[in-house]
Amino acid sequence: MTASRNLAALRARLAADRLDGFVVPLTDEHMSEYVGGYAQRLAWLTGFGGSAGSAVVLADRAAIFTDGRYTIQVREQVSGDDWTYVDVPEQSVAGWLTGRVGAGARIGYDPWLHTRGWVEETAAALAARGATLVPVARNPIDAVWEDRPAPSPAPMIVQPDAVAGASSAAKRAAVADWLEQEGADAVVVPALDSIAWLFNVRGQDVARTPVALSYAIVHADGTADLFVAPEKVTPAVAEHLGNAVRVFPRDGFADALTGFAGKRVAIDPALAVAAIFDGVEAGGGTTVALRDPTILAKACKNPVEIAGHRAASLRDGAAVTRFLRWIAAEAPRGGQTELSAAAALLRFREAGGDLRDLSFDTISATGPNGALPHYHVTAESNRAIEHGQLYLVDSGGQYEDGTTDLTRVVPIGVPGEEMRDRYTRVLKGHVALATAVFPHGTTGAQLDALARAPLWQAGLDYAHGTGHGVGSFLSVHEGPARIAKPSYPGAGPSEPLRAGMILSNEPGYYKAGEYGIRIENLLLVVVRTVDGGEAEMLAFETLTLAPLDRDLIDTTLVTRAELRWIDDYHARVARELGPLLDAGDRAWLEERCAPLARG
Amino acid sequence: MTASRNLAALRARLAADRLDGFVVPLTDEHMSEYVGGYAQRLAWLTGFGGSAGSAVVLADRAAIFTDGRYTIQVREQVSGDDWTYVDVPEQSVAGWLTGRVGAGARIGYDPWLHTRGWVEETAAALAARGATLVPVARNPIDAVWEDRPAPSPAPMIVQPDAVAGASSAAKRAAVADWLEQEGADAVVVPALDSIAWLFNVRGQDVARTPVALSYAIVHADGTADLFVAPEKVTPAVAEHLGNAVRVFPRDGFADALTGFAGKRVAIDPALAVAAIFDGVEAGGGTTVALRDPTILAKACKNPVEIAGHRAASLRDGAAVTRFLRWIAAEAPRGGQTELSAAAALLRFREAGGDLRDLSFDTISATGPNGALPHYHVTAESNRAIEHGQLYLVDSGGQYEDGTTDLTRVVPIGVPGEEMRDRYTRVLKGHVALATAVFPHGTTGAQLDALARAPLWQAGLDYAHGTGHGVGSFLSVHEGPARIAKPSYPGAGPSEPLRAGMILSNEPGYYKAGEYGIRIENLLLVVVRTVDGGEAEMLAFETLTLAPLDRDLIDTTLVTRAELRWIDDYHARVARELGPLLDAGDRAWLEERCAPLARG
Repeated sequence: MTASRNLAALRARLAADRLDGFVVPLTDEHMSEYVGGYAQRLAWLTGFGGSAGSAVVLADRAAIFTDGRYTIQVREQVSGDDWTYVDVPEQSVAGWLTGRVGAGARIGYDPWLHTRGWVEETAAALAARGATLVPVARNPIDAVWEDRPAPSPAPMIVQPDAVAGASSAAKRAAVADWLEQEGADAVVVPALDSIAWLFNVRGQDVARTPVALSYAIVHADGTADLFVAPEKVTPAVAEHLGNAVRVFPRDGFADALTGFAGKRVAIDPALAVAAIFDGVEAGGGTTVALRDPTILAKACKNPVEIAGHRAASLRDGAAVTRFLRWIAAEAPRGGQTELSAAAALLRFREAGGDLRDLSFDTISATGPNGALPHYHVTAESNRAIEHGQLYLVDSGGQYEDGTTDLTRVVPIGVPGEEMRDRYTRVLKGHVALATAVFPHGTTGAQLDALARAPLWQAGLDYAHGTGHGVGSFLSVHEGPARIAKPSYPGAGPSEPLRAGMILSNEPGYYKAGEYGIRIENLLLVVVRTVDGGEAEMLAFETLTLAPLDRDLIDTTLVTRAELRWIDDYHARVARELGPLLDAGDRAWLEERCAPLARG
Repeated sequence: MTASRNLAALRARLAADRLDGFVVPLTDEHMSEYVGGYAQRLAWLTGFGGSAGSAVVLADRAAIFTDGRYTIQVREQVSGDDWTYVDVPEQSVAGWLTGRVGAGARIGYDPWLHTRGWVEETAAALAARGATLVPVARNPIDAVWEDRPAPSPAPMIVQPDAVAGASSAAKRAAVADWLEQEGADAVVVPALDSIAWLFNVRGQDVARTPVALSYAIVHADGTADLFVAPEKVTPAVAEHLGNAVRVFPRDGFADALTGFAGKRVAIDPALAVAAIFDGVEAGGGTTVALRDPTILAKACKNPVEIAGHRAASLRDGAAVTRFLRWIAAEAPRGGQTELSAAAALLRFREAGGDLRDLSFDTISATGPNGALPHYHVTAESNRAIEHGQLYLVDSGGQYEDGTTDLTRVVPIGVPGEEMRDRYTRVLKGHVALATAVFPHGTTGAQLDALARAPLWQAGLDYAHGTGHGVGSFLSVHEGPARIAKPSYPGAGPSEPLRAGMILSNEPGYYKAGEYGIRIENLLLVVVRTVDGGEAEMLAFETLTLAPLDRDLIDTTLVTRAELRWIDDYHARVARELGPLLDAGDRAWLEERCAPLARG
């Protein structure tokens, strides 16, 4: 077993470094959600292939921490001989450690892979047991990982100002104004999508998210230091960045942090690792914990970005419509699988010629696999698409003018009554959110129940959030806002929604071992002035265009207003996508979008 | 002006005490929402008669802090020559002070009237300016307030175990178990309603809330010390309390706090004033900040309390129905006023013979006064009830078996179309909340939007919470849960709703200068198992029984499901209240409760 050998190698290294244990998170130096191969330390150590988790290695035992999404997967991929499985959030790394370390123990962590908040909390928990949390100068895994991938050398790409809707100079000037207002001299920006947005550049270093490995520091005069591998800065990128952006090698960043003696440096404690705070303070600078100043500006799309998203939604919706016609015809004939369907969808998207990448690995799931909300098809998990199943496809594309994300469900053959009941309840929740009108200041946590209420009435729910932010040719999961229960991890549910934000609307229902349902469109937050109203309100405009499955809608369960929304949406889908389709696809779409009869 | 003289007297006293300022809150030593006359220091000092506010007196200026409810009232009652009006939460006492005190300033506060959290926050804000927040040994207002009322001498009353549903010994045993689990030796209980609930006693010291001025300390062995004026403990009360409850004079409490050397004492930082923490720590005890252990048990009514609430709702609903028939007949004839209507309602409630008190001052408001959500009628504000107005009455009774609170709106003459539209939207929100089904763990903040959505659709909202907890023959505003926006002050909106809690459901709409609408029933949180559901859910049962005004309902705006709820509710009101009414009242009620035709 490779993983067992790797675990043994790490333990030997820890012994040599006089450490009694080591904590292994799944992130990179930028606190990224998705990380490059060079940072896949958890997978190297354990064999775990999920997208979230962490591990702790002690001399005589080791534990892997995963959440409810991965309860089954972790047991399949990670050896129970070597590892104890721990569920989060029931037990935290700190909680598990405090029960298992003695006085004097030294537990190592890599300060480039944890927030300072995590370090403080975990150090305090260990201190209560007389143990110490020790930063390592070099990650001990990197010291023993023989075939570790090098970071990607792919070049940066210019994102034209005409597509971004604002120049980098204008964005940096706004950051400089913010620095003056906050009384700070500089801000460290480690988040990769923040850097991409701020400099109007994109990258190819992380699958599905067009960002380049880099760090940035913006100064009060609007100039900036960009730390990035020199080979990524092509002449076109250099010209685009201009003289006000000084380019340095990425590995010069740590030293640069120590150059702020007597200065006040803003750092976002949620997005910056502990080593960034440590570096500034070691150099005599004062750190000021403030939210990354690009976060809100990036989330609130400007008119050019909004126009881009509309164009991307049209283009992507046409490709998805062609796919939906294809699967409706092909699946009942047999011979299709989750993998073949995902490949077909990719072909329809690529046929347009504008696709830069998928925005995430397509979730192509049939029957019981659909009941796993975060399922990713592999050669081992691949299932045949068969009669009587619901086929669920959650996918999106990266285009220069926008990032898409939608989910549709297709019944193979005639769906059962329960499937139609559940689909219709999910749709009622989807419509309730899509048609919500709400005051300025309203948060996603306040709206979340609107999407769940029709399921709750039936004693049902779904164990994931209702909506996440989406970037502009950037992260398909973008902060700061989120439509979710207030207990959802992080501050997203308590962030007020603002005009220009783009969020997903994706309630679902999952019957374990049988089928899954999710209906997902992207929503744009817009200002809504109601005739006779007393305050300017906010509302949503649905961006995503693709037909819902009419055979799954039980019209006896919908109100007149809901039916009107469905018919209006379908009329819009047919009207807007029609001109992009050939005659056969258009006729099929029009039939699927015809008004429904009320039950 | 009496208030001006009082302000001058306080300033003279502050000078003698070498204080540069003093902070005057509106509360008592128990952090009560409503306080006895002896604690009405803010009113004595300023003339302000509202139920929430605070003041700061400096040598050369003074400010009164009130929220949006009192913007008009404070300017009418408090002299602008002496006082600056400050709106909270836009500006806090600490924020105002820091802009106006110099280095070395000594600002006094009474440690028996502020939480430690407030003290720490305000002290830190002053320290940043080189000023100091100084606890006073005796409140300087009390030193100069010549005709200060004495605390009420009224006796305590036994609340029979058969009505409380659990004995005090059993409740104290549960507290003792909790102390053991938390590793604490004792808990200080300063909240008056917690004490009343814990010892199964009631009092008459605070208007509208049946509590007695007292403090309690419960020990790990289940015994308790009760600090209360000896004249309040009648022989019946003494016998009821038994030997395990040691009774001490109320003024012995401060000394008793210092007797916990080496012990761990639990104190609720939200309900206990700073002096309680100070006292325990001065005596060598360790304070442990924990929520008052009676809060959840008190909020989750037991089956006996629930039966009591049902009985009180029936009795109270019959009285309110008689009143509604009376006002429907009398108001159009002219000659009625807000005061005469409130008096009539009191007579109908008293006629039953079981009323102990009102649960709050009746809000009897017609026309524009109805647009003030917290209006209280006085001789000066009293308006004639006239044709074309909406008359709003928000009221409740204290009965031995339950506390009621309901709001109804009556049109005088034929209501306008806008009034009917608004009333119907408020009703749709009320029904959405009343019929909500939701998982365990759901908070009031998650459900609040259900009640607002129909108003939001029209660009409207209401500037108050949707629901508050209600006690059992106790506070009409009872913690810990609240149905409100997450921005509502305090932790109430983030408290999970639990089976047995009783909360109000009171969305509203207010058109400034014209009319106000509010529809309020009490809800009981119940367990709901849905056929075919996958998890046990919670839901609401409406406790309040009184007809809604059918003339205000626009049936073209309601869904089939909403109409069914209204008709079912009315059928239940007529069926359950009918037997308590005479033939004339019953016939009127049945007519008002007949099924509505769908528009």
